[in-house]
Amino acid sequence: LNPNIMEFLKETVGEDQVASKLIDLISYSCDASVFRHRPDVVVYATTTEQVSAILKMANRERIPVTPRGAGTNLAGEVVPARGGIALDMSRMDRILEISLEDRIAVVQPGVVYADLNKRLALHGFVFPPDPSSGIVATIGGNVATNAGGVRASKYGVTMGYVRGLEVVLPSGEVMRAGGRVLKTSSGFNLTQLFVGSEGTLGVITEVILKIDPKPTETCTAMATFPRLTDAGRAVSQIMRSGAIPSVLEIVEKTCIKAINQRTPLNLPEVEAILLAETDGFVKEDALFQMNKIVDIFRANGAMEVKWAESAEQAQALWKARKSSFPVVSSLNNTTFAEDITVPLSKVPDMLQALEELGSKYNLIFPTVGHMGDGNLHPHFSYDRTNPDEVERVTQAEKELYRAAIELGGTLSGEHGIGLAKAAFMPLEHDPVAMATMRSLKKMFDPNNILNPGKMNLEAASDV
Amino acid sequence: LNPNIMEFLKETVGEDQVASKLIDLISYSCDASVFRHRPDVVVYATTTEQVSAILKMANRERIPVTPRGAGTNLAGEVVPARGGIALDMSRMDRILEISLEDRIAVVQPGVVYADLNKRLALHGFVFPPDPSSGIVATIGGNVATNAGGVRASKYGVTMGYVRGLEVVLPSGEVMRAGGRVLKTSSGFNLTQLFVGSEGTLGVITEVILKIDPKPTETCTAMATFPRLTDAGRAVSQIMRSGAIPSVLEIVEKTCIKAINQRTPLNLPEVEAILLAETDGFVKEDALFQMNKIVDIFRANGAMEVKWAESAEQAQALWKARKSSFPVVSSLNNTTFAEDITVPLSKVPDMLQALEELGSKYNLIFPTVGHMGDGNLHPHFSYDRTNPDEVERVTQAEKELYRAAIELGGTLSGEHGIGLAKAAFMPLEHDPVAMATMRSLKKMFDPNNILNPGKMNLEAASDV
Repeated sequence: LNPNIMEFLKETVGEDQVASKLIDLISYSCDASVFRHRPDVVVYATTTEQVSAILKMANRERIPVTPRGAGTNLAGEVVPARGGIALDMSRMDRILEISLEDRIAVVQPGVVYADLNKRLALHGFVFPPDPSSGIVATIGGNVATNAGGVRASKYGVTMGYVRGLEVVLPSGEVMRAGGRVLKTSSGFNLTQLFVGSEGTLGVITEVILKIDPKPTETCTAMATFPRLTDAGRAVSQIMRSGAIPSVLEIVEKTCIKAINQRTPLNLPEVEAILLAETDGFVKEDALFQMNKIVDIFRANGAMEVKWAESAEQAQALWKARKSSFPVVSSLNNTTFAEDITVPLSKVPDMLQALEELGSKYNLIFPTVGHMGDGNLHPHFSYDRTNPDEVERVTQAEKELYRAAIELGGTLSGEHGIGLAKAAFMPLEHDPVAMATMRSLKKMFDPNNILNPGKMNLEAASDV
Repeated sequence: LNPNIMEFLKETVGEDQVASKLIDLISYSCDASVFRHRPDVVVYATTTEQVSAILKMANRERIPVTPRGAGTNLAGEVVPARGGIALDMSRMDRILEISLEDRIAVVQPGVVYADLNKRLALHGFVFPPDPSSGIVATIGGNVATNAGGVRASKYGVTMGYVRGLEVVLPSGEVMRAGGRVLKTSSGFNLTQLFVGSEGTLGVITEVILKIDPKPTETCTAMATFPRLTDAGRAVSQIMRSGAIPSVLEIVEKTCIKAINQRTPLNLPEVEAILLAETDGFVKEDALFQMNKIVDIFRANGAMEVKWAESAEQAQALWKARKSSFPVVSSLNNTTFAEDITVPLSKVPDMLQALEELGSKYNLIFPTVGHMGDGNLHPHFSYDRTNPDEVERVTQAEKELYRAAIELGGTLSGEHGIGLAKAAFMPLEHDPVAMATMRSLKKMFDPNNILNPGKMNLEAASDV
């Protein structure tokens, strides 16, 4: 970047809000994915006006700008693939307002998910989407990736809670979409166009979220299954029975083995463990739902069903599920969490396809997943210094996506597209939809300065 | 329309699917609003291919096309404001699939809302948005206007349930957006761009809806309030208390008076009646919520609280609310249901503003409303043959919108913009948002053939 631009940035945000040492550039070259590319400079914004001034300049000078929060995303969304400015929004971190009466929270994009929910919990309220990274991930990133979590099966994902946004467009113009009302039928839904847009259309500078009363009662149970197909059938029956699990998680045998190798949990080495939680505001409600679920577990060949009698017992049941990612990450030098999602009835087929892919490519896919919404997280765990293994992973990944799409699924349930799945977009989206997305990108960002290179928005490209 | 075009239409859809007699054109000149404009021809489509062929031709020949379902909409959305083709989608009326397992229903746009829910009820499932016109309104129209209803406070509006769409773009190209999965973070949310777009961006030819288990237990209660402010405060306290009413309706005194004049219901002539319903899958849950609500009614000066002990008693309580629209419609030769929505905490201010407007313009506004989401339906009831009254109504309407927007509200909670509120769009949406909506329209429909004249998408215009 030329010195004038560096000077402009320092004048705009302050000397100490601009970083360009090698260590800064390396830090900002990555997120939680396997992708890496350095920015030319890191800028910390603290006001909407600063973001506006930066984008205006960047648009004029054709400098790429990649907005980011905590960088916990898993698909390369905030890797500055073309260099330029890494725009760190994490210092815009104020909770501007919590209005129980209006059932909304107004926050800056850098507010950490868990901090918001800690504040809401004081009042018995919650912002329900529950990303695993919530303890560090920021709300801006939740919105930009349409983040989900283990409770999405009952409570849905981020999109269902975003009522309004302030965004800065690539031109530097500031726009308000939506607002404080809980519903509206006034004009196009500009708000939802930015939810899940991964910072490619505008930079989010304020978010108005719907908040909900927080359930006070839960039931937790787990069941072990000797056959994967039994677990799959149990899930199907649960979902069609009208039961409403707030959580319905799977941990399958490869993952169980890995957990047993690396932890003292000593799990039964079965084909699959299902973990269920129900919730509500009266115990009877959570119980009613859980009774239905446990009956279905039993009717489908569950070997052991453990029902937590206390919060401590519930936490013990959660341990297997929660230890899976750290355990799997320690298996090899590279781990990539997949995120394919299929219609609920296709979960058994997808699990079957994973098993076949493993045999074919001599790979293991330790898998956990949110069964209540068909979202599977098989993990690619491999040695990236071994070219043969990398090649097998690359092939298997392609086939995995094809299999998911053929089953009526999507490339991503909650992690997003970023760099990781950009090339595969045309597998899922028909040519008219792809052309429409590219036209939208061009309309909002004619000079392609905002997070360029992501989501396959630039030109026709096939797999 | 020239004879070649008439010939083309008949060839495309069949002789008996094209209507152009005067009586047809008059029938298709209106919806449930006060607006009227005749089309040049009425065409009934039965396949996506037909819709595609018609749009392709219309785009080439620059003929306006106004898609419609049952025409129950209240803001002029389906009035063919520029003539051309009225494209009736109500014969694409098949329920293509109900998959309990995948928790979705796949329907053509002409399926009547109530028919879908009758089918779902057989399995204990429901598509929750609940427009008052549901007995005739079609799903395509529900989606195109982002329809709400009395249960939106707990269950949200149509947008929360649309998972996928097939749409025909003005070019005639067919596009699929979203799909059968319950969640996705793959690309821009094209689906939501069409929800609430009032047929201005594309013609919906298939809808994939999320369906939910249907609650089996309800509690119903009503309370009378001597002062409007007491009722308003009760609503605020309910919503901040964490109670979750599935229904929280108001009927205020002007409306109560009108009901007593025209029906034998003999309601207490108080300032306001609140009607509440809670629901769930176990009686204890519905009871727990209703106890909270009734306590708050009592603590806020309710004179009489009636708790329905049976389904019959609940229906009796509903009568006042349900009779309001027919009663109000019979007061005068013209009735226009307003649809402003404000943040929950501003409901008392909005009710106050209505009272002041009534005095100022010597008008009455019989009002009902969905208090759980701040959605008020004051009715303009007037004599359209009286120019002075029409003028007062026009002035009052403008002030009503300004008041709602100043309180942080929206022009429409669930009825849409259409012709009725097109001119007022810039009151609510800032210049950047207005420009963005117009750019979107231009991108999708460069020749402005789809439902032209609606939503203020054509040029800068102010109030």
